[in-house]
Amino acid sequence: MLYTPKEEITTRIAKLKKLMEKASLDGAFFHYKIDYFYLSDTMQDSLLFVPLEGNPLLFVKREISRARRESPLEQIVPMRSVRDILSHLMPMKRIGLQLDVIPYNDAIKFMELIGDADFINVSPLAKELRKIKSPFEIKIMEKAALIQKKVYRKVPEILKEGVTEIEVGGQMEAYAKSLGHEGLLRVRSMNYEAYSWHIVAGRTGSIVSQSDSPMGGLGLSPAFPVGASMKKIKRGEPVLVDFGICYHGYQVDQTRMYAIGSMPDLFAKAYEACREIHYRVLDKALEGKTSRELFEYSEKLADKMGYGDVYLGYKPHKVRFLAHGIGIELAEFPFIAANHDYPIEDGMVFAIEPKMVFPKRGACGVENTVLIENGNYRVLTDSDEKIVVV
Amino acid sequence: MLYTPKEEITTRIAKLKKLMEKASLDGAFFHYKIDYFYLSDTMQDSLLFVPLEGNPLLFVKREISRARRESPLEQIVPMRSVRDILSHLMPMKRIGLQLDVIPYNDAIKFMELIGDADFINVSPLAKELRKIKSPFEIKIMEKAALIQKKVYRKVPEILKEGVTEIEVGGQMEAYAKSLGHEGLLRVRSMNYEAYSWHIVAGRTGSIVSQSDSPMGGLGLSPAFPVGASMKKIKRGEPVLVDFGICYHGYQVDQTRMYAIGSMPDLFAKAYEACREIHYRVLDKALEGKTSRELFEYSEKLADKMGYGDVYLGYKPHKVRFLAHGIGIELAEFPFIAANHDYPIEDGMVFAIEPKMVFPKRGACGVENTVLIENGNYRVLTDSDEKIVVV
Repeated sequence: MLYTPKEEITTRIAKLKKLMEKASLDGAFFHYKIDYFYLSDTMQDSLLFVPLEGNPLLFVKREISRARRESPLEQIVPMRSVRDILSHLMPMKRIGLQLDVIPYNDAIKFMELIGDADFINVSPLAKELRKIKSPFEIKIMEKAALIQKKVYRKVPEILKEGVTEIEVGGQMEAYAKSLGHEGLLRVRSMNYEAYSWHIVAGRTGSIVSQSDSPMGGLGLSPAFPVGASMKKIKRGEPVLVDFGICYHGYQVDQTRMYAIGSMPDLFAKAYEACREIHYRVLDKALEGKTSRELFEYSEKLADKMGYGDVYLGYKPHKVRFLAHGIGIELAEFPFIAANHDYPIEDGMVFAIEPKMVFPKRGACGVENTVLIENGNYRVLTDSDEKIVVV
Repeated sequence: MLYTPKEEITTRIAKLKKLMEKASLDGAFFHYKIDYFYLSDTMQDSLLFVPLEGNPLLFVKREISRARRESPLEQIVPMRSVRDILSHLMPMKRIGLQLDVIPYNDAIKFMELIGDADFINVSPLAKELRKIKSPFEIKIMEKAALIQKKVYRKVPEILKEGVTEIEVGGQMEAYAKSLGHEGLLRVRSMNYEAYSWHIVAGRTGSIVSQSDSPMGGLGLSPAFPVGASMKKIKRGEPVLVDFGICYHGYQVDQTRMYAIGSMPDLFAKAYEACREIHYRVLDKALEGKTSRELFEYSEKLADKMGYGDVYLGYKPHKVRFLAHGIGIELAEFPFIAANHDYPIEDGMVFAIEPKMVFPKRGACGVENTVLIENGNYRVLTDSDEKIVVV
């Protein structure tokens, strides 16, 4: 197993403290495991406290010996002692809590435990911190991308007339797991679940779902109304395969197009338009445009090419993002989106996914996880982009 | 696709209103999708309002036409009109919100929108409601159990010397999905994730994890430190396969034991002790004992049989439950546990899982999803319980 080096964790904590100082926080507590994992390299059932001055303290409920093996932090103590240790802390006036994710009742209980202080949402700092990936993180994402490449190479073997969408997803997943894929994708939300299997063929690709995605899919039941379904894949349909990989907690995302027999011309052409938008936006990103400018630029491109009505979905279901940052969460900073406005910088990693959805007919598109480095871009998910017809 | 009949939803809402009346609630909002699904039969991105008097109102963000197809509720309106509609409501003094799951910031924002009122946690009512399953729910769970039976029959084909734990899980899952398994299991928690693949062989079965389970597993990385691992399964090891199925939102849970070549005597005997506890506790449940009494009875049985030290884990990692209710959440009422004290009644469904964990050696146990009906019990997950040696 791969552990995060101590220097990496030390650097992350130091960067967090700078942001905390700017936000005038005396200390911050991390209850949400995605964020304390980033700052400690453990996902044991824990609570992380980072004081502005002094060393972080990890309180572990279960299982502490594993936390001590995984995390390079020096102070790792049993959870039952939270109250004891708090009583020895200097009085703190402004305290960070993850108010965007902690359930209301838990937050209230914790605030009462801490006593008189101002409680500030610390999650924006955690998100800001993760906007730029380190070389260590990029190496893990490269490995995730390698797994993904192998998995996509299997798709032509799996894809046969009459196979269901969900069977394709299941078989990809089984193979991916044998290579180290962790099965779940993670999102910061009470209600949103991410699947590894957004596999939609023909008409189901045009079905809008609860998820904020250009195409949704039929899913399996009212309880799982998104993604792959029991629909049997037919000849001559566009088959969109959007399948995420998670390796050592880090995710990469990719979409490619397949067909059995032949790909309808409409989708073949629209797919090339998606690829053109994908690469022209990346070129533009290197010129220093902000994320919002890039999003608007992509819309103009789609319009010019005659795809305005179907680009990123059809009205009124269009989505307002072209790319989502990706890492230990499936959707994190940076976004190339209508309401995000910042420059694209070295160290950012995002999944860019221009897609076209034709009502009642289907969806097509391309998606890659891309790293910005040395003022250039590098596609991590470098599977061949040609449409595969089996 | 199977939709929940209107009468079923009407009955659930009526029962909820009775509980609301008892709790003096004028109305309740359901933001958490597991609970609004139970009351509406849709998991589209929505918010459900149930007034004490009058019809429920479902506000849908995305996608409303699917919500209208799925849900038999009569009032289904776009989410943007929440504020408009609230302004027409009678003033309400005591309002239910799901304060155990809604993030703090969202709860505060929503309370401000509603204005002056007392906000009460309505989740205990939702949980109470789901404690007893209806004949309609039981039919779905029977189908889930049938999928599970088929999947377990495949295990002997998959299990070969040198296959990894995660490969076994992945292949079971791929097959399960082809039969309608929905892939995810759902739990009511910010941090806890449920997997379909608690597959542990030999020593990894004795590794404790963050999850509140007798055995944990090594998992794949510090970011996924639970369940199946990359460990290759060897001859003569106890292989515990604990694999949940989710069908149309309803879950069933089952554990069986396997080995390649031979099962060590220690585990074969301990497994029979688990089966004895399993069935003797069920017999006792029919005599009207409470859940806590049943838990204590099981501990005494394990002690008498000489397994006190390893029953439900070893010290200090023992868990304090023998069974968890199961349905649209993996762990819901009723629990047979140290801190749950109520009688076991007709219509309850729970997964009973006596397990023994031997430090550094491995785990064994049996688990079934069991229904109480007509004063008797019925094992829904009725796969053969013999140890399978391949």
